[in-house]
Amino acid sequence: MGQTVTEKILAAHLVEGELKRGEEIGIRIDQTLTQDATGTMAYLEFEAIGIPRVQTELSVCYVDHNLVQSDFRNADDHRFLQSVARKFGLYFSPPGNGISHQVHLERFGLPGKTLLGSDSHTPTGGGLGMLAIGAGGLDVAMAMAGKPFYLVMPKVYGVKLTGKLPPWVSARDVLLEVLRRLSVKGGVGYVMEYFGPGVAELSVTDRASITNFGAELGATTSVFPSDATTRAFLESQGREAGWVELSADADAVYDEVMEIDMSALEPLIACPSSPDNVVPVREVAGKPVAQVLVGSCSNSSLRDLMVVAKTLETREVSRELSFEINPGSRQVLENLTAQGDMLTLVRAGARVHQAGCLGCIGMGQAPPTGAISLRTFPRNFPGRSGTKNDQVYLCSPEVAVAAAITGKITDPRELGDYPRFKLPARYLPGDARIEPPREGTGVEIIRGPNIAPFPDFTPLPEHWQGRVLLKVGDNITTDHIMPAGAKVLPLRSNVPAISEFVYEAVDPEFVKRAKELAPGLVVGGDNYGQGSSREHAALAPRYLGVEVKLVKSFARIHKANLINFGIIPLTFVDPADYDKIQPGQELRIPAIREKIAAGAETLTLEVGGERIEARLDISPRHREILLAGGLLAWAR
Amino acid sequence: MGQTVTEKILAAHLVEGELKRGEEIGIRIDQTLTQDATGTMAYLEFEAIGIPRVQTELSVCYVDHNLVQSDFRNADDHRFLQSVARKFGLYFSPPGNGISHQVHLERFGLPGKTLLGSDSHTPTGGGLGMLAIGAGGLDVAMAMAGKPFYLVMPKVYGVKLTGKLPPWVSARDVLLEVLRRLSVKGGVGYVMEYFGPGVAELSVTDRASITNFGAELGATTSVFPSDATTRAFLESQGREAGWVELSADADAVYDEVMEIDMSALEPLIACPSSPDNVVPVREVAGKPVAQVLVGSCSNSSLRDLMVVAKTLETREVSRELSFEINPGSRQVLENLTAQGDMLTLVRAGARVHQAGCLGCIGMGQAPPTGAISLRTFPRNFPGRSGTKNDQVYLCSPEVAVAAAITGKITDPRELGDYPRFKLPARYLPGDARIEPPREGTGVEIIRGPNIAPFPDFTPLPEHWQGRVLLKVGDNITTDHIMPAGAKVLPLRSNVPAISEFVYEAVDPEFVKRAKELAPGLVVGGDNYGQGSSREHAALAPRYLGVEVKLVKSFARIHKANLINFGIIPLTFVDPADYDKIQPGQELRIPAIREKIAAGAETLTLEVGGERIEARLDISPRHREILLAGGLLAWAR
Repeated sequence: MGQTVTEKILAAHLVEGELKRGEEIGIRIDQTLTQDATGTMAYLEFEAIGIPRVQTELSVCYVDHNLVQSDFRNADDHRFLQSVARKFGLYFSPPGNGISHQVHLERFGLPGKTLLGSDSHTPTGGGLGMLAIGAGGLDVAMAMAGKPFYLVMPKVYGVKLTGKLPPWVSARDVLLEVLRRLSVKGGVGYVMEYFGPGVAELSVTDRASITNFGAELGATTSVFPSDATTRAFLESQGREAGWVELSADADAVYDEVMEIDMSALEPLIACPSSPDNVVPVREVAGKPVAQVLVGSCSNSSLRDLMVVAKTLETREVSRELSFEINPGSRQVLENLTAQGDMLTLVRAGARVHQAGCLGCIGMGQAPPTGAISLRTFPRNFPGRSGTKNDQVYLCSPEVAVAAAITGKITDPRELGDYPRFKLPARYLPGDARIEPPREGTGVEIIRGPNIAPFPDFTPLPEHWQGRVLLKVGDNITTDHIMPAGAKVLPLRSNVPAISEFVYEAVDPEFVKRAKELAPGLVVGGDNYGQGSSREHAALAPRYLGVEVKLVKSFARIHKANLINFGIIPLTFVDPADYDKIQPGQELRIPAIREKIAAGAETLTLEVGGERIEARLDISPRHREILLAGGLLAWAR
Repeated sequence: MGQTVTEKILAAHLVEGELKRGEEIGIRIDQTLTQDATGTMAYLEFEAIGIPRVQTELSVCYVDHNLVQSDFRNADDHRFLQSVARKFGLYFSPPGNGISHQVHLERFGLPGKTLLGSDSHTPTGGGLGMLAIGAGGLDVAMAMAGKPFYLVMPKVYGVKLTGKLPPWVSARDVLLEVLRRLSVKGGVGYVMEYFGPGVAELSVTDRASITNFGAELGATTSVFPSDATTRAFLESQGREAGWVELSADADAVYDEVMEIDMSALEPLIACPSSPDNVVPVREVAGKPVAQVLVGSCSNSSLRDLMVVAKTLETREVSRELSFEINPGSRQVLENLTAQGDMLTLVRAGARVHQAGCLGCIGMGQAPPTGAISLRTFPRNFPGRSGTKNDQVYLCSPEVAVAAAITGKITDPRELGDYPRFKLPARYLPGDARIEPPREGTGVEIIRGPNIAPFPDFTPLPEHWQGRVLLKVGDNITTDHIMPAGAKVLPLRSNVPAISEFVYEAVDPEFVKRAKELAPGLVVGGDNYGQGSSREHAALAPRYLGVEVKLVKSFARIHKANLINFGIIPLTFVDPADYDKIQPGQELRIPAIREKIAAGAETLTLEVGGERIEARLDISPRHREILLAGGLLAWAR
């Protein structure tokens, strides 16, 4: 039987288990990446493992999230990361060099390789034909230590692309269409694998926009074949030596298949406040816009900014809004500047920022109260922009620039002729990455006062008893659990400090209550823990004494993070039991240790005089980790 | 008897009083400017006065301070200011258009005119031959309402410039030399007026760097003549119609004179943590540097960034530090980009930011703990960078780029040949200012939820009694009294909220104590209230119940702000009495109302069983204002 691209890469990297759907497998990781917001903790964890140098083919330490530096903490983290990279043998990409995913695509990613990144948008690498997976920092630390990465063998969702994108419609609209059809839960348990004649119509950065934004489907990752276009892209980066051809066999079997005729697509937009709230742009056209932001790991490649610049060559930006450009990388900025497009953007009235994540992670760029912000970003979860009750719409660079010109949501097809432009045959490098020295001995790690050691957690008790500390609904994101933004992100290296913000927007009393009543559990609905990969959404609640989560269903990365930090991830056998549990109640799980050790797939919970059955759907390895009190304790 | 430039401009604008040293005069204000951090309050005050349109020749509303937008507040302020400008008839310079002083120099400033700005670096305009004075927002609001600006007729300090700057020595070194000689108190009571053959050797932006940085002398303002160079600059901006010739008469008399032979200057640097802590660069050369920032209203003109770019054409930036460029204006950025210098900066490894104040006002760019930051900024007061115990050095762009290349403090003369470059005969405009409509009626002011109305204060009582809430030493800055930075700046439109941060770094218990024990007074040393013009350093303490300040001497703008908000500004008749007062003591000023009304120049204070004499050195108009409880109450 033929294989998909997904199966080919997994087979080539398999070190434990069998490639059977639904079973846990362990795979070898070729490359890792971290960003600064997850990276400081990942390297504290790597340090705690006690191995002197990274064991991967390539590991890169990026700084792209915390670029504002409101106080000493971010700058200290940057120095810590630079010294860590030097000591442990990683490339270092300094602040201003660009967004991890964009830089990795340009300088490091290779088809057929596995990439594990402590950022949920790591699947960007799938645009190059990599199997690029987002994970918690601790998983990345283990991979850097040469350990396999464990995951449940995913199903493969084939997305057949046909036709050709019409003018003013771009890669972003392809994935908006997938989100419209499948929702933010539609990809859970799948790798989204693209194939068909339409693939050849998309550049590598188009493909990367699609695999990047595919994270919002809840998918394990997304992947494209590696073809002549991939080779040409690697050549344009001076890296053609790393090219391999990679495509699904003609008789490959997909678990599900959908077809998208790209010729039939029109400009789409995700309305507030979920990426799958997708409608055609024309349906919301005319609404006044206060802010337009072009950037983020989803849509800040040279192509994306060139479309914007070329469209503005003969036009000005409306003075009723703030129009801002966040270049994806120093390379993008260098090429843009050398080509004259930077001058066009400045003249048109854009605020051009240093390369990085910026407003996408809530580091500035908050929109005004009650006003519409259009963004080429991947997420519009409520409040993520930094403004409560924000009105954030997600769209392509084409739709963004149309709004920037008219001051209102506008179908870009109304602008007339689509700009013509050609990507460079050879990109200017624009690269400030720093190679590690051969030897790390003698390198001193620079540690600022905000960098706190990794906390110790106790092993699981014989019987568990605790309080229901919080009950929440469906689609709780990791932004709800552990907010980001300028106030909180600088605390990522300091667990006691960052824990003060757990569930802040959902329930401002949560932290106080948890401290009084812990240990305890949180009860939730479907798709619990969607969104960013941040392990602090597990680690910080664990620090506060949350030892169990009982929900209708989990998002994949978050569930893995819970196990890594010793939190028991339970799902309701009967979702209707959700209604039987109230906040404040006492809950008991008798003989929890014995049952988990024995491989029990359900646990009986006693609460309010009732008995509730909960499923514990985890691997034998996970059971060992939970008994030990977390992955780090288990690994040591 | 001949006149100085200062006297000529004052004479041409005099509406009250006589041009006698030490007496209060009222002058007509031709132009005003505000920035966003002081502007929101200034327009709330203007609104409270109740006049429909500004009465000046030209008023400009800039947004340059709060560009980070960590939450809705900054963005709401920007929209508020844009709507206010439209309603009241001001030009609006949106975020990203540049630093007020740089943009004003390029687009609006004119020789012979008076400019009042709610920012202490307003004297930048003196580079064009304007009398440009920094003041509190309320003073600017009064000027916009067509009222005179009152000040004590200053003395004139003549600075005779001779010779020519050697290679690698620039305008910044001229003022560092003045600061070295005079200290941060040396200019109090003076206008610094430049004359002599050396003037012709300096471009207008060089002159503006000098008058700008002259604010750190405590001077009322600084001013250059208007000559052929001024005319050429205005021509290069397409504004030659506004040129007038202006210079001191040959027999003009200065109160003090110093001479600076520019040929004899060498690269200088101000060490932590005061702008007058000046030594030759060679004396501190070799210290490792973690951060180099080129920008701020002092040194971010096209010339300054061209020197940096041209120096980097054949060199790279050290990878051990963060090298950052904050362009002064969109015009600077446009010209830099069109000339190819932007490409050089990006290639060399710079983080290039949007045009604005950024790290200079603590909005990001905080340096790492314990590490050296070199900045072309005007101030290095302790903690202003956002990092406690910071090590901030102030220097020229030449010294900054030398450190960026070598990674340590370096005398730039070691770099070899000084780069050759020519300023454009005609600048590209790079301008996104927005003209006001003819009519403001019908324009609705957009007010976000953080914009609180101006608080009401009560008139002065018959007898005053209160507690000594705090006792501080010499050289307390307005940064000490009312910190800025990313956390506090967004609260500038909300007096109750911002008051929570008063004296935070000096005494974290101050606010709590003031709330418990108010009314009260603060006791201080010499040069109390130096630094920024922020009126919140008067307004917020007044809101907390600080009704009297008793110090050895005041900085000019701060004293004026105290009076504007009804705080009695007293100085010790005998400075030794400072030691007789302890925090927590009860202090009485009997018959204060009667005495102030009667013109008493000293008041008797009763404290701890002793009587202390304090001087009240203010004009009859000030007395009326204090009796009314503040300027706004008085004006109404």
